Amino acid sequence: MLDCGIWLPLVKINFEVNLMRTLFHVPLCPFSRKVRLTLAEKKLDVNLEPELIWKKREEFLEVNPAGKVPVLIDLNQKILCDSNSICEYLDEAYPEPSLIGRDLFQRAETRRLIAWFDDKFNQEVTRTIVYEKTLKRFFEQTGPDSNALRAGKAAIEFHLDYISWLIDRRNWLAGDDLSLADLTAAAHLSCVDFLGHVPWDKFPDAKEWYSRLKCRPSFRSLLTDKMPGISVASHYSDLDF
Amino acid sequence: MLDCGIWLPLVKINFEVNLMRTLFHVPLCPFSRKVRLTLAEKKLDVNLEPELIWKKREEFLEVNPAGKVPVLIDLNQKILCDSNSICEYLDEAYPEPSLIGRDLFQRAETRRLIAWFDDKFNQEVTRTIVYEKTLKRFFEQTGPDSNALRAGKAAIEFHLDYISWLIDRRNWLAGDDLSLADLTAAAHLSCVDFLGHVPWDKFPDAKEWYSRLKCRPSFRSLLTDKMPGISVASHYSDLDF
Repeated sequence: MLDCGIWLPLVKINFEVNLMRTLFHVPLCPFSRKVRLTLAEKKLDVNLEPELIWKKREEFLEVNPAGKVPVLIDLNQKILCDSNSICEYLDEAYPEPSLIGRDLFQRAETRRLIAWFDDKFNQEVTRTIVYEKTLKRFFEQTGPDSNALRAGKAAIEFHLDYISWLIDRRNWLAGDDLSLADLTAAAHLSCVDFLGHVPWDKFPDAKEWYSRLKCRPSFRSLLTDKMPGISVASHYSDLDF
Repeated sequence: MLDCGIWLPLVKINFEVNLMRTLFHVPLCPFSRKVRLTLAEKKLDVNLEPELIWKKREEFLEVNPAGKVPVLIDLNQKILCDSNSICEYLDEAYPEPSLIGRDLFQRAETRRLIAWFDDKFNQEVTRTIVYEKTLKRFFEQTGPDSNALRAGKAAIEFHLDYISWLIDRRNWLAGDDLSLADLTAAAHLSCVDFLGHVPWDKFPDAKEWYSRLKCRPSFRSLLTDKMPGISVASHYSDLDF
């Protein structure tokens, strides 16, 4: 195993390295989407490289032994792994606009909500719907488990209710300003929405919040994503859904 | 549901609030242990309150609707939820000693390794051994799944190998200095070690690194933990194991 350490001498990667910032990603991976949204909100150009992580390509495992996307190679040729580490790095390296917040408690609240969506929503909804209906066929060569899908479709209503409750009290999820909490929640929801499983009409406040995000230039690249063999919901790229 | 927002007016909690910093925790929860180690390394006193999360106590859910430990109430009476949010907050509010690092890339490497243990190790080892043998009986009223235990015991060797590889090249996991990467890894491993399932003798470099951590004053409170009905490995609290 080669060193994937970010601050140690750079690993030579055998695939194309160009002078652009490069993000290795999977189109329907919410963690990759969170980083794409963060880069776009900070107006940082990036070259997107799809990585078929289920193939466990040796050169990729040398870069990130965890075998996961996203992996970012920044302009300084440093390799960054894990969506949380990457987003914290981007907010420190490119501080405008701040996506975590400036005040100590605001930052803690943003991070609490990032964990809410990356842990709880991911486990209860993204994995049970998106993984089951898309990546599972590549990783496990089997189709979706109907019990998991049913559990995911029930759990998403609790989460949309929580988003509605927050948005009833705040302009954005973590407070007055757009933050990584919004981008994280939207990254997960956008994957479920790709498959048409978000019951927007039952949650008008959550829909209004998502609609504000969907109209932002940072969202554009997500709306043109495709996954071979997986059909996209008809309203997915519609800004007036 | 009350507001659990950290920067909004404080939720009144109905259980005892004293003037001490209070941490709601579960003794064999690695995420709680990570926060306990962080507090102790920063020499911050804390009152530990065990929380039986599987009972889904209403007052606790009002404080943290995610229903998870750890939850910290700091001296300023602010409520902080999620181990990552808490540890980042502690490193910002009480900067000495820095446990994430001072340099941009050092910080990214610390956070990459925190995610390695909190995500990958947790999913492959802690959940398959510690959850199966301890908390599962409370959450699911069933005993451990022998396939999960077998998978966990195989996976831990890969992780001990990775720790050995890092320690062969660095003083601590993320570099020259002790960091949250070490505390996170040790928090998870200490739970597995409580049950006696860490094959230390096969990995002398990892053992030497863990031994350095185990001798630190911050580790003491972990070594006296007990869980009703769960027997502790005989070497668990032995500094010369």
